[in-house]
Amino acid sequence: MEIKKICILGAGTLGSRVALQAAISGFEVKVYDITQKALDFSLNTMQKILHLLVKSGQLNKEDLASILARIEFTLDPKVAVADADFINESVTEEPEIKKKVWKQFGELAPEKTWFTTNTSYLLPSMFAEESGRPAKFCAFHFHDVFYSRVVDIMPHPGTDPSMIPMLEDLGRKLNQVPVLVKKENPGYIFNTMLMALIGAAGKLLTKEVGSIEDIDRSWMVNFHMPMGPFGILDSIGLDTAWHVTHNLPDAASKAFAAHLKTYLDQGKLGEKTGEGFYSYPNPAYKNPDFIK
Amino acid sequence: MEIKKICILGAGTLGSRVALQAAISGFEVKVYDITQKALDFSLNTMQKILHLLVKSGQLNKEDLASILARIEFTLDPKVAVADADFINESVTEEPEIKKKVWKQFGELAPEKTWFTTNTSYLLPSMFAEESGRPAKFCAFHFHDVFYSRVVDIMPHPGTDPSMIPMLEDLGRKLNQVPVLVKKENPGYIFNTMLMALIGAAGKLLTKEVGSIEDIDRSWMVNFHMPMGPFGILDSIGLDTAWHVTHNLPDAASKAFAAHLKTYLDQGKLGEKTGEGFYSYPNPAYKNPDFIK
Repeated sequence: MEIKKICILGAGTLGSRVALQAAISGFEVKVYDITQKALDFSLNTMQKILHLLVKSGQLNKEDLASILARIEFTLDPKVAVADADFINESVTEEPEIKKKVWKQFGELAPEKTWFTTNTSYLLPSMFAEESGRPAKFCAFHFHDVFYSRVVDIMPHPGTDPSMIPMLEDLGRKLNQVPVLVKKENPGYIFNTMLMALIGAAGKLLTKEVGSIEDIDRSWMVNFHMPMGPFGILDSIGLDTAWHVTHNLPDAASKAFAAHLKTYLDQGKLGEKTGEGFYSYPNPAYKNPDFIK
Repeated sequence: MEIKKICILGAGTLGSRVALQAAISGFEVKVYDITQKALDFSLNTMQKILHLLVKSGQLNKEDLASILARIEFTLDPKVAVADADFINESVTEEPEIKKKVWKQFGELAPEKTWFTTNTSYLLPSMFAEESGRPAKFCAFHFHDVFYSRVVDIMPHPGTDPSMIPMLEDLGRKLNQVPVLVKKENPGYIFNTMLMALIGAAGKLLTKEVGSIEDIDRSWMVNFHMPMGPFGILDSIGLDTAWHVTHNLPDAASKAFAAHLKTYLDQGKLGEKTGEGFYSYPNPAYKNPDFIK
């Protein structure tokens, strides 16, 4: 079955980006959320991205109207899912909320609809049953859609294997590089590696082996990268990092979580609050002298 | 005391690169090794690098003769160290060999000479005493000198703190970015983080969460990097990776070491043997289709 109509549940940062890319790729898109404020935020997010895509020459200005015309925002679950071929869900990362949403939309969706979750840290098996059609349920996880163009395909043990080539094909149509996560794994593939890197950086800091700057410098200069692990943490958000870290069982993670907490207690959550390991909008690591 | 004369002990790949950069930076350099074959290899290595530096416009062809004229190769320890202001040692990574070398050169070196080791995985305190002047002894560790321009400065507990600013200054003169490793740490800063990344990638592979290609793809596309952890492993050498991994205590490292061993048993050591996780000289990850 060819997918033409896509329904996005949850109009946050990531959901909005997936919806926008789907419209750019020519799909008809419905974006659902529970408040008008969320939908307004979503349209605003899309317009900002479209502006940047035109500015960088990736889109023509003339195409913007037809792209936006393919997107419908709605507060009505029935409208959102009517005739949808495909759902990608990006609601709050709480198993109970996701269960409720999937129960609701599993009942409302037409029989043809494929179900996917864009969860970042949970596993599809935690709420596949609630959808009422676990065989048509899989994780389909985007990173940021436009800069990091990876889409993870992660089946749960009950997923129909025929979903995988279908999702690979859809991922490519959405201008992403599909990656198959063969078994359920929290954090998929990339986040597992990123967390290992950040954990090592955190340990070097809390054990006072190196300074924030020298740890970042080592990574940036060796790999010719624009930021190091602490710059990355500032962009992820120290609250998110603390959330992931403080439940890990090992002593090094606990020590780093405690260190992150001292920033949280001062309201320093990273780039979004203007202050984290570095100060924004002009963090030290962006100064060319930083790696001289 | 200004450093003008540098002695390099061990004319392998890294020693030769440090020696060459020192000569490019205007220092007088003596390169010591125990066989003529090693010295011939060293000169050959330098000529290849000089050719590339001229080709890429980083050096003028007219300067090559004077650069090479600043380098003297010798099999005679006394000649190597006579009047040296500074020693950087890159001999075999075996504590017993390093102890012997430092005992020998500690006795031969003039009183003014500063001692540094370029060890990759050992700690300076393992052989600082043997040099007879532990206060003037520090790790000064290069990555590859020309592409990855980090130099780690890692004192042992007995290092005179005044060595640190001196080494930072010298590192900058050698066109490197100095990084201070405040406490002895095997693998310094960068290798600690790289090993964490590689360990996570190895675990994803041995637990069959992802394929070699999908793990590398995730890293490359998300970070816009030219290779992923398995491509990096091929360039490091699977024998080196096995050597580091197989002694680690955790089950995941042991499983990955066992996996690496299957490659070693087939003579597949990575890029240098033409075969590792990928086949060289045209590994799949360099094909633009790899991330499509």
